[in-house]
Amino acid sequence: MERMHTFTTHRRVEFVDTDMGGIVHFSRYGVFMETTEHLFLESLGVAVDMEIDGRRISWPRVSVKCQYHSPARFGETLEITLHVLRKGTKSMTYGFRFRSGEREVATGEVVAVCCEIRPGDEICSVPIPALIADKIEETPR
Amino acid sequence: MERMHTFTTHRRVEFVDTDMGGIVHFSRYGVFMETTEHLFLESLGVAVDMEIDGRRISWPRVSVKCQYHSPARFGETLEITLHVLRKGTKSMTYGFRFRSGEREVATGEVVAVCCEIRPGDEICSVPIPALIADKIEETPR
Amino acid sequence: MERMHTFTTHRRVEFVDTDMGGIVHFSRYGVFMETTEHLFLESLGVAVDMEIDGRRISWPRVSVKCQYHSPARFGETLEITLHVLRKGTKSMTYGFRFRSGEREVATGEVVAVCCEIRPGDEICSVPIPALIADKIEETPR
Amino acid sequence: MERMHTFTTHRRVEFVDTDMGGIVHFSRYGVFMETTEHLFLESLGVAVDMEIDGRRISWPRVSVKCQYHSPARFGETLEITLHVLRKGTKSMTYGFRFRSGEREVATGEVVAVCCEIRPGDEICSVPIPALIADKIEETPR
Repeated sequence: MERMHTFTTHRRVEFVDTDMGGIVHFSRYGVFMETTEHLFLESLGVAVDMEIDGRRISWPRVSVKCQYHSPARFGETLEITLHVLRKGTKSMTYGFRFRSGEREVATGEVVAVCCEIRPGDEICSVPIPALIADKIEETPR
Repeated sequence: MERMHTFTTHRRVEFVDTDMGGIVHFSRYGVFMETTEHLFLESLGVAVDMEIDGRRISWPRVSVKCQYHSPARFGETLEITLHVLRKGTKSMTYGFRFRSGEREVATGEVVAVCCEIRPGDEICSVPIPALIADKIEETPR
Repeated sequence: MERMHTFTTHRRVEFVDTDMGGIVHFSRYGVFMETTEHLFLESLGVAVDMEIDGRRISWPRVSVKCQYHSPARFGETLEITLHVLRKGTKSMTYGFRFRSGEREVATGEVVAVCCEIRPGDEICSVPIPALIADKIEETPR
Repeated sequence: MERMHTFTTHRRVEFVDTDMGGIVHFSRYGVFMETTEHLFLESLGVAVDMEIDGRRISWPRVSVKCQYHSPARFGETLEITLHVLRKGTKSMTYGFRFRSGEREVATGEVVAVCCEIRPGDEICSVPIPALIADKIEETPR
């Protein structure tokens, strides 16, 4: 089976994404990255929160970064590209690039850790199950 | 014990509450009402999500309304007053009034239903437990 | 030209739309209604914030209502239908219906007023310009 | 006049801050950092968006980072401490630390650039005006 390392989606800026500066509020890019990550996993036939062999597997994030290059405005369509920067034993590092046409809007990076959610909400990092790991590879440099 | 029917709190408008129109986004008033309701319950010594006699009791809302009279802006302090409009057997109807100084900003109304949350996320409306009901009365007209 | 009174769109529930109750936070339905209204206007070839004859025309809302029938969860696709309930001289009343498959999720109503935004952020209600009014009619009962 | 480099505030986690994981959504920490920065500036007698010598001065952010150490839940009170990590000619770098009691919750960093907002929304970085710069110093290591 082919392993994937890149995923692209598009998202239109909504009115509620903006602030009184007239531009997309910086905190929304975190949301845009998260949803892109979820869509990437779905494109592989898995999900961000799923049961595998009787265990509930989810991906809390431990680190998020974003650099803002130019503001985005209401109605613009952002092209969001995800790359797999690092595939670890228990974590994934994703890079994101936001563009509006030819314009660079932002770049970001997220580290998500593969965890088992046990009864009582106990959260415990675990090796990425083969069902998921076998579908992903790092983006070649 | 004295029963309560009115509660007032204050809230400063944050940058993220605003939109490109330069004013508080209308959807934020729903959040402001919800948090005021939670603070009202706390002022009575109970909570919006609590265990009573081994049952988990929570208050999903079934209806929310808001009328917008004048816009609020970043940095303004809103005075938010809650009134108990109706105390039913299984539901509470709260009225809200938002002011900035002398200016009327908005009025709203929320109907929240007393529910037991059972294992497996089953939600079932139940009579308001006496522990809560005995602390609340309707605001006199 | 044909006048329109109904518009349907679909929206997938995102992780950030949910709260600790495991369901879509009630305040998000206000956002979903607003974006649907914007898409309806776009489908007519106009926009929620546009210049007409040198005047900036926008649509602040004066009233929003929502009734919640059954909860929606992460990953569900909501079908959102807008109806024009009332076309006034200066305002529009829109009705909204949220469904997930055959399940009724919520219904809502928004009153938006046609306003001219003048320099210095002065907001003044005005008759709906013909460019917009001529494209809309009320949904037959 | 005394220059400041540290500021502490407290913030209660609201219901809307949480997601279906039962914890504060990671994107909310960006909001918490932003509001803390605004309160720091206010504590100095200035504001994040103000007129100085006829010019409108504001602080867009160019970079935001956050590391998540342990989850925060509804009702918890977070202690948020801001430190001035770097005071540049045209930018400020702030560090943030989130605690709940003795528990480390998160750490973050924001780079904000001093900008003049000119008519037509043109944004241009400028040296930090003395009115603001004279009130701030870097936190000693």
